[in-house]
Amino acid sequence: MGKLAIVGLGLIGGSMGLALKRAEPENTEVIGYDKDPEVMQRAHKAYVVQATAPSLARAVQDATMVIVASPIVTMRKVFEEMAPHLRKGAVVTDTASTKSDVLAWAKQTLPESVHFVGGHPMAGKEKMGLQEAEASLFDDRPYCVVPSVEALPGAVNAVVGLAQALGARPFFLDADEHDSYAAAVSHVPLLTSIALFNLVRASNAWPELANMSGPGFRDLTRLASGEPEMSHDIFLTNRDNVLHWLDRYIGELHKLSDLIASKEDSESLFRSLAETQMEREQFIERLPQREGPVKNIEFGSSSEAFMTFLTGTLWQERAKEITGTLAEQANERARERRMRRDLDDD
Amino acid sequence: MGKLAIVGLGLIGGSMGLALKRAEPENTEVIGYDKDPEVMQRAHKAYVVQATAPSLARAVQDATMVIVASPIVTMRKVFEEMAPHLRKGAVVTDTASTKSDVLAWAKQTLPESVHFVGGHPMAGKEKMGLQEAEASLFDDRPYCVVPSVEALPGAVNAVVGLAQALGARPFFLDADEHDSYAAAVSHVPLLTSIALFNLVRASNAWPELANMSGPGFRDLTRLASGEPEMSHDIFLTNRDNVLHWLDRYIGELHKLSDLIASKEDSESLFRSLAETQMEREQFIERLPQREGPVKNIEFGSSSEAFMTFLTGTLWQERAKEITGTLAEQANERARERRMRRDLDDD
Repeated sequence: MGKLAIVGLGLIGGSMGLALKRAEPENTEVIGYDKDPEVMQRAHKAYVVQATAPSLARAVQDATMVIVASPIVTMRKVFEEMAPHLRKGAVVTDTASTKSDVLAWAKQTLPESVHFVGGHPMAGKEKMGLQEAEASLFDDRPYCVVPSVEALPGAVNAVVGLAQALGARPFFLDADEHDSYAAAVSHVPLLTSIALFNLVRASNAWPELANMSGPGFRDLTRLASGEPEMSHDIFLTNRDNVLHWLDRYIGELHKLSDLIASKEDSESLFRSLAETQMEREQFIERLPQREGPVKNIEFGSSSEAFMTFLTGTLWQERAKEITGTLAEQANERARERRMRRDLDDD
Repeated sequence: MGKLAIVGLGLIGGSMGLALKRAEPENTEVIGYDKDPEVMQRAHKAYVVQATAPSLARAVQDATMVIVASPIVTMRKVFEEMAPHLRKGAVVTDTASTKSDVLAWAKQTLPESVHFVGGHPMAGKEKMGLQEAEASLFDDRPYCVVPSVEALPGAVNAVVGLAQALGARPFFLDADEHDSYAAAVSHVPLLTSIALFNLVRASNAWPELANMSGPGFRDLTRLASGEPEMSHDIFLTNRDNVLHWLDRYIGELHKLSDLIASKEDSESLFRSLAETQMEREQFIERLPQREGPVKNIEFGSSSEAFMTFLTGTLWQERAKEITGTLAEQANERARERRMRRDLDDD
């Protein structure tokens, strides 16, 4: 019997419970813990988890895998508190939107006898909390798997398997890559949304502007309704990357501004708009793939390995081989990407 | 029997045909014209309009109301071509996304015996063309009504009635206001979307970024898939307003950037994010209303007046009275808003 503990039963932790229940893992008990007893009670009543624990210590005790799904700012403290109670060989993962700080905290606080592998499901909603949880939240969504340097292949593979059990698409990154890329596709978009809402809201013509606005304004400012606690934590734990990409974003706006301002050359504006449209349509039709020998990482048996891991029989030679290859490929891919980025980007 | 002509049977013109069919106006014939004969044939077969006309001249001949729903850049030419064939007393309206140029072209090209009232339904899709048309496109969407200075109250009221017959919420603005406000809630949002897609697409890490991106990036870049022809026309016919609001938008981004960069004062960042969230939630719950005596313009009988107008019996004293009051209120409201804007904004 394997035990999986979810610490923090909000939107993400709760959805994980529901998604795992849907996946029906054999011989696995899913235990939930939340610092708010009322949330725990509701999670228990709604069968989000199979059982709840009266304390963090009891929740993680004997757990083969611990998923920390609490807010970023609380994470270091949660790690510290649970550290003495973790089972030797346990895999610890998290769900935070930024990874460098979290990996550093894990290294500082968790015992060497456990394996930390960061995780970040690219899924969410503006509204948070257990009442928003749903089993399908991670379906077909990217799930970043961010191993620490010390993480054993078997532990990495167990988190890959977790992502698959949740219905998500696992995706390898190192912490630096993750935080830079997340700034581009997630944190700067959040800022573009907030700034757009602030721009229009601050105008003296706000009542007219609001009444005149259509679905475009509504959709593009959706992220501005996100929880300020979460946004705040993201911006502070990913400050440099966010500022870097935000600066580049402003650069893109200036390019467009120049094209529009040029009264002689409206052809260039048109060409630029047409190219963007074409590229966006291609992106919607089919996700781009990196050319070259490492473009496909096969996760074929990871879900199985995750189950095996949870029931305590992970350390078999076969699994080691598979995951060793996986981790090697991932590392090679990460190295290559970093090199490309250092060479070409910016 | 009244005759209503729709010139241009794309997404907007086609949807108007379908919405008018749904509204079942009595004693009204809806005629369609498109420069592409194949589009006209399809519109006729799909009962988007009751009949089509072999030429622009024949389409507008005898029409009580003409709706020009062709691209902005073609509009001046369409006005010129149809001018000699318009019936005396006809109401001409359009559906373009910018209004100052269109009103100027109308003044330059249309005979004084017809009444031009600009229109702009705040509805659309990324995909355009007749095949995308639907009767519900305008349901509960704002519909800007932008009268020329010379427009008679009865003509204004007929366009208000048209908007209501389409299921939309009519909304009075003068051309300057319209173009400034549309820049804020529609054209700059388009640019934020295009710039965000360009930012990420231009990176050497594009394949990774694309695969890692979640629903936020997808939603926020949706407008980047819009037709480049339309965006191009919008930016060129609303250049000054777009550049003005874009500059202010960049200012909002700089404010956020400063808040994030400040290592001493993360409290201010949090307060700012929390305020934005609260304001956005209020906006979603209920549209703000302008305080004061002119806050509600009653359009009560406009739909009826639209029908009366189409059947050629508009010029009754009662209708004149109603619409006179309406137009006065609208003018007063517009004046007041312009004053406020000049005084406080910017």
